[in-house]
Amino acid sequence: MSISGRPQAPAMTNPRADRVREVARLAGRPARLKRRQFLAEGPQAVREALRLHGLRGASGGQEVVTELFATGAALERNPDIAALADGPGLPAARLVTDEVLAEMSSTVTPQGLIAVCRFIDVSLESVLAARPTLLAVLVEVRDPGNAGTILRAADSAGADAVILTASSVDLYNPKAVRSTAGSLFHLPVVLGADRDELLAALREHSLTVLAADGYGDVDLDALQDESSARRLAGAGPAGGAAGDRARLEEPTAWLFGNEAQGLPADLVEAAGHRVAVPIYGQAESLNVGTAATVCLYASARAQRRTPPDASTA
Amino acid sequence: MSISGRPQAPAMTNPRADRVREVARLAGRPARLKRRQFLAEGPQAVREALRLHGLRGASGGQEVVTELFATGAALERNPDIAALADGPGLPAARLVTDEVLAEMSSTVTPQGLIAVCRFIDVSLESVLAARPTLLAVLVEVRDPGNAGTILRAADSAGADAVILTASSVDLYNPKAVRSTAGSLFHLPVVLGADRDELLAALREHSLTVLAADGYGDVDLDALQDESSARRLAGAGPAGGAAGDRARLEEPTAWLFGNEAQGLPADLVEAAGHRVAVPIYGQAESLNVGTAATVCLYASARAQRRTPPDASTA
Repeated sequence: MSISGRPQAPAMTNPRADRVREVARLAGRPARLKRRQFLAEGPQAVREALRLHGLRGASGGQEVVTELFATGAALERNPDIAALADGPGLPAARLVTDEVLAEMSSTVTPQGLIAVCRFIDVSLESVLAARPTLLAVLVEVRDPGNAGTILRAADSAGADAVILTASSVDLYNPKAVRSTAGSLFHLPVVLGADRDELLAALREHSLTVLAADGYGDVDLDALQDESSARRLAGAGPAGGAAGDRARLEEPTAWLFGNEAQGLPADLVEAAGHRVAVPIYGQAESLNVGTAATVCLYASARAQRRTPPDASTA
Repeated sequence: MSISGRPQAPAMTNPRADRVREVARLAGRPARLKRRQFLAEGPQAVREALRLHGLRGASGGQEVVTELFATGAALERNPDIAALADGPGLPAARLVTDEVLAEMSSTVTPQGLIAVCRFIDVSLESVLAARPTLLAVLVEVRDPGNAGTILRAADSAGADAVILTASSVDLYNPKAVRSTAGSLFHLPVVLGADRDELLAALREHSLTVLAADGYGDVDLDALQDESSARRLAGAGPAGGAAGDRARLEEPTAWLFGNEAQGLPADLVEAAGHRVAVPIYGQAESLNVGTAATVCLYASARAQRRTPPDASTA
């Protein structure tokens, strides 16, 4: 399949070519860090990468996609991606054979599309300067699937950004990228944040810091009840008696911890509020992705967030 | 390590023994169906299997664990499991070498413990006879990890049972068992339910049937707001004006659909209520496990469920 309006480079057919190996190497962290690039694989991730590229291009921001590789069959199956790739400011899609694509890809089912992307993470300062009201902070989350799932949940709940501390999993890991289901390209992400500096910065920007902690002394459902009661009583966020209780309707940063160890004790202490998702059955604990989802949605609801295009809801 | 008070069979050392192969074969569906047995692997699943076995034994119910295989190191690391296995009515743990255990196991990291368990699913009739107020129904969910995660979330939210329709993934698949993190042994599970019969039975037992559907016309947050408002206004479940709107505080069965296709259209139609988890960001959709978690917790909260042992909360 040809891509209209562009001169076509010949299809890449040699799976052992240097260029193919260079792309494949981005599945590994050393190559990613050296080149400050990562892989978006499959139609969903590639589509969102191209969209972000287009948005940034329109606002004079840095480009996202530096190279796009596709099999002819994948472009036929995804005409919208073929059209996006044909847009201004984008590198033309390079046609590759199935063998070449399989060699480049880290997945068993690469679905015919790979984009090489520049790192897209942003600085903590830029996130805080935008006056966020809902942040998800991942502290030493180690499983790429969990990190990706939380990022996707944060996107769904309308969070303003996701922050990963240093020693968390690399979000540019192909499995993490895949688990975000495209959400990686939807909201700002801060990587490698220093724990202590982060906490100080969150405070400075008047964010309530809530530590999600299975052993927490504050029940999330109680906080939701209090928030509902305030709203129905007509008290705005500033109304009601001042107190030590966290208010879900206020600008909030949630801290989510490691799968096995949870959050470090000193960080829980420093957060000031330890909030537990109640367990109504016999389960010992919640998966961190599940807990994060429930917490972020509770905040979204209390803050009366609205879908991006309410008219189509 | 010896297990006190029991004559010890000699450790199994031959990874090619017939008995080892028979256990390993339970990773496959044909052997499971033929023998009506499945594998619980690792300390968490084995512990919960033994506990359920003990509970059932005390109430004269059918035994759960028919055989228990353990390395000496695993029993040393998990003295509580060694003690449980030493309880009355349990088959003594059979010591095996690491090689034997690795051969029996379907996982890369078997952690030294495998229990052969009888099928523990129950009939739909028995579940409905217990007058459930919160049910999770999985309709053609295909991924074992998703099914396991939803079961774990249902356990956390205090659901009374989980029902899988025919053509859903086999919940006794080792990956599904693992994803439940022990919850498989916590609440009743119905397998292979017929879609149409199920829906009729749910209705007959006065359960409100809510179809979780990304394209639903009813917003879950709106239902939660209405429920909160009724509660704060002092209207009980029976109070307020009758209407067509679903009420989260009423006995509810949630339907969750296939990862790619969602719920079948005829089932959504029959359910009567199509409820969407709102998306406040740019995510296209929610993972079915994430959506199920948010829905089940919304019901748990509206129904004012309480943790099993509130005094320790």
